[in-house]
Amino acid sequence: MPAVELKGVFPYLVSPIDAAGRVKRDVLAALVEHLIAAGVHGLTPLGSTGEFAYLDTEQRLEIVDCVVRAARGRVPVIAGVAATTIKGAVELAAKVVALGADGVLAILEAYFPISDHGVEAYFRAIAEAVPCPIVLYTNPQFQRSDLTLPVIERLSAIDNISYIKDASTNTGRLLSILNATQGRMKIFAASAHIPACVMLIGGVGWMAGPACIIPRESVALYELARQGEWEKAMRLQRRLWAVNEAFAKYSLAACIQGALDIQGFPVGDPLPPPAPLSEEGRAEVKRGLAMAAG
Amino acid sequence: MPAVELKGVFPYLVSPIDAAGRVKRDVLAALVEHLIAAGVHGLTPLGSTGEFAYLDTEQRLEIVDCVVRAARGRVPVIAGVAATTIKGAVELAAKVVALGADGVLAILEAYFPISDHGVEAYFRAIAEAVPCPIVLYTNPQFQRSDLTLPVIERLSAIDNISYIKDASTNTGRLLSILNATQGRMKIFAASAHIPACVMLIGGVGWMAGPACIIPRESVALYELARQGEWEKAMRLQRRLWAVNEAFAKYSLAACIQGALDIQGFPVGDPLPPPAPLSEEGRAEVKRGLAMAAG
Amino acid sequence: MPAVELKGVFPYLVSPIDAAGRVKRDVLAALVEHLIAAGVHGLTPLGSTGEFAYLDTEQRLEIVDCVVRAARGRVPVIAGVAATTIKGAVELAAKVVALGADGVLAILEAYFPISDHGVEAYFRAIAEAVPCPIVLYTNPQFQRSDLTLPVIERLSAIDNISYIKDASTNTGRLLSILNATQGRMKIFAASAHIPACVMLIGGVGWMAGPACIIPRESVALYELARQGEWEKAMRLQRRLWAVNEAFAKYSLAACIQGALDIQGFPVGDPLPPPAPLSEEGRAEVKRGLAMAAG
Amino acid sequence: MPAVELKGVFPYLVSPIDAAGRVKRDVLAALVEHLIAAGVHGLTPLGSTGEFAYLDTEQRLEIVDCVVRAARGRVPVIAGVAATTIKGAVELAAKVVALGADGVLAILEAYFPISDHGVEAYFRAIAEAVPCPIVLYTNPQFQRSDLTLPVIERLSAIDNISYIKDASTNTGRLLSILNATQGRMKIFAASAHIPACVMLIGGVGWMAGPACIIPRESVALYELARQGEWEKAMRLQRRLWAVNEAFAKYSLAACIQGALDIQGFPVGDPLPPPAPLSEEGRAEVKRGLAMAAG
Repeated sequence: MPAVELKGVFPYLVSPIDAAGRVKRDVLAALVEHLIAAGVHGLTPLGSTGEFAYLDTEQRLEIVDCVVRAARGRVPVIAGVAATTIKGAVELAAKVVALGADGVLAILEAYFPISDHGVEAYFRAIAEAVPCPIVLYTNPQFQRSDLTLPVIERLSAIDNISYIKDASTNTGRLLSILNATQGRMKIFAASAHIPACVMLIGGVGWMAGPACIIPRESVALYELARQGEWEKAMRLQRRLWAVNEAFAKYSLAACIQGALDIQGFPVGDPLPPPAPLSEEGRAEVKRGLAMAAG
Repeated sequence: MPAVELKGVFPYLVSPIDAAGRVKRDVLAALVEHLIAAGVHGLTPLGSTGEFAYLDTEQRLEIVDCVVRAARGRVPVIAGVAATTIKGAVELAAKVVALGADGVLAILEAYFPISDHGVEAYFRAIAEAVPCPIVLYTNPQFQRSDLTLPVIERLSAIDNISYIKDASTNTGRLLSILNATQGRMKIFAASAHIPACVMLIGGVGWMAGPACIIPRESVALYELARQGEWEKAMRLQRRLWAVNEAFAKYSLAACIQGALDIQGFPVGDPLPPPAPLSEEGRAEVKRGLAMAAG
Repeated sequence: MPAVELKGVFPYLVSPIDAAGRVKRDVLAALVEHLIAAGVHGLTPLGSTGEFAYLDTEQRLEIVDCVVRAARGRVPVIAGVAATTIKGAVELAAKVVALGADGVLAILEAYFPISDHGVEAYFRAIAEAVPCPIVLYTNPQFQRSDLTLPVIERLSAIDNISYIKDASTNTGRLLSILNATQGRMKIFAASAHIPACVMLIGGVGWMAGPACIIPRESVALYELARQGEWEKAMRLQRRLWAVNEAFAKYSLAACIQGALDIQGFPVGDPLPPPAPLSEEGRAEVKRGLAMAAG
Repeated sequence: MPAVELKGVFPYLVSPIDAAGRVKRDVLAALVEHLIAAGVHGLTPLGSTGEFAYLDTEQRLEIVDCVVRAARGRVPVIAGVAATTIKGAVELAAKVVALGADGVLAILEAYFPISDHGVEAYFRAIAEAVPCPIVLYTNPQFQRSDLTLPVIERLSAIDNISYIKDASTNTGRLLSILNATQGRMKIFAASAHIPACVMLIGGVGWMAGPACIIPRESVALYELARQGEWEKAMRLQRRLWAVNEAFAKYSLAACIQGALDIQGFPVGDPLPPPAPLSEEGRAEVKRGLAMAAG
């Protein structure tokens, strides 16, 4: 199977769940349709914004199933796979691929600190379990372990590990990864990086929650960057940044859920105890959306 | 139902799982028998040492079932209940109580930061869902949220929340909790505190992994402290401390698993990717056990 | 010169400075007189509470000179010596000893991270430069380096390094130090530890800001602990703890300065930009003092 | 006095001191000559790389005096002013300006945590004390306080505070500062940011240690960025990044001192206890220099 090449804007999808714990398939399908119409290049269910840590396996699989069916092959679907054990991750990865996911965003959850050797074994096992592209995910803010540069280098030698999404705020680290892996590892920005900067240094796109609520503007920014129109890209980037700032300030999932609600997608609130977006947060998100609209 | 009064030494049990993911019921039952024979005052399955974060719901329930059956009512069983959502915690608490657990060690797992209000709602919901005593658990090292003093004060007003196990290293905080709740909240030490000190300031015992491997010595220390034999208690405490030091230095579960293996209980290793106890760690644990033996 | 044996209650003195930057010698001398009359066993100028980081060399030396003269040999004076360079520390240590200090509280200031080797070299050089007892100081909260257990062990082999004041909140670490150095290193508690607990495990006293404002009660607590009257000690300790809580909550120097002002010692406020004790802080300190008075 | 407009490459100078504590004026003057010949746009003595925290006032003033005299007005000299008290900072700022410095890099040292109000008061007092441009410095890694966005906004309203050098690794924060201050605050990158990215988002240059050892290449990169030649800039940037990586990995001052020694400037080692660049570090710096040379 020739691997699909991943690049461009991949919104991190929310996971709409009703009070009884059921996936709101119609709302999620409508969001997928809306995003594809806006030109996004792929979809990422079950990232941080997708509240994976708050969903059971059944809910996670139904989210992936719903997104795959709604996307109908028009854009690749890269599903989040998070677990604390290798066994759990490998099983979940196999299931999301069986449901039609085109790739796996591999996330390591941990309770105890874990050695570089263990981190490497975890991601390697996932890559060996499924034939599709693997996007490594690293988030020093929420993860209890981190992908070090030597581990990333070693993992980049594996055929189907050729992407990384780095959710640190340290943009210089991305250039170090690019240099160290001599281009074998392609970079997706997260919302904590300035997308235009990541594109400048050689990134291939971004996987991020804000793209859910400003999809057209995100695609326009991507296109400007790809064409080397850096001054125009930065003018747009400057306007869009307020959305990322709100996203960083308020809880990730709650922020995108609140914004989508404002935009007419009743995706609901975080599963308690995490709180819904505050009134103050809603006001800031509205200002961000207005600024993004220019 | 008159609530049982909890006090004394409650070993944090490991969770013996075989390569196929099945609970080794016979090994666990033998360990329970051994600990009760050594005089422990209660048992705590599914604490940190019990690798709860690495087990699925089915495995967790089987562990509790096995411990309850092996204990046969001789000592109270306080089962760990950890979840990211209120719904998940309430359901799990009801199940462990239905299996015969005498109390719940309530643990909040979190991916996103969570407000004091959310933390309080989580523990309150568990307390309302089950009729038995709740032991609050707080571990600033591994938890992404923390129980603040005002939250602990408010929770102490709830009838069946009258215990807390604090796994910080900050012993002064325990005295602040005792003073602020005017004795409504009873304190169990964790392995990061010196048990003799926690008893001196008014604690009621300890819930900790090391008690699994030095049960007789732990019970002797508890008795000395309860009798106010502080000099004798400290002589014993000084000898036992090396076990807590090893426990802090190496991964909690791996350390106790390695020590139990040395003692003839083939409980197995951590579920990968966490690593088994290193050779160096085994040597240090052996030295600690020898020192504890006097 | 036979080294004086240090033990008991050593208040951390504030550094009263007027608006023009001059040491208020009369206020400081009156405080020294008051503390000695209250029975304290020693005095420690230029600790954290003494704002050493905010004073120039001349001011520091005048503080030490004033305290030595006021003490008139009735109790030992252990002067804080803090520097970023070995050269600076050695010079300052020689000067405070020349002024009559009976010992040195050795503090390592750092801007860049520093290796264990460098930390050891710093303290060793001070010990070699002066003939008096050295008290090692370690504060993981404010220091950019830390004294690790192996470094403490090595330093304990030096003749005139036989005391350590640990300002972490980790009381278990103190027992580890005692065990590892087999008693060669004697422990002074800091305000973040419960003094009664540190005495129980074998400490020799405490060096702390709160002893400035509750000197009589501190001395009474020390005597009860020394006599093995642990229950009585804990009853008193429980009452005194509120003062340590306020001290931890508000800025160290500001808190003691505010309390001394309430007690009739016009020691002034922190040197700006650090702020004076807030009204809320003053109220809490007053409550603490009332509770301590019983 | 019309304020000079600051922009371009400002190497962070080292502070060559001999074993007796004397400034090696000839070595420093030769370095200044070399850097000006290489085309740098300004010079910054007494930044982090200049070991300000390890020098006394006299040494600091002599460093500034030497740099001002060697520069002979050909490029602006922005001298670091660091203190813990407002009084100390104001006095030092006046002195460096009296010696001929064209601007002040204002650094807040702190031992106790400090409120936003105190942080603002500190920088405001420096700005009022001297007539020249002030560059705010913020380094969350080494400073015990941080400049928050609201404080930066308020300070940007002061006439002669119009620059900030942010030594975090968070490049997104720079865009937030630019947006929030609507361009009133101009941004200098630090070595932890990718200079090309900071230029892209609207920065005016960089103040950093690595520019000391790759001055020509740094100036070339600045020129490419200023001309909007982003692809060419990135090709050069990619080669130069290894120097910044070494700088981040090894101690800042030691790294630049080691590299300058390799290049023929005997600037000496850090003042102990900080250690000189290790053999491994020297090798990595050499590789970085070779890579930078293309």
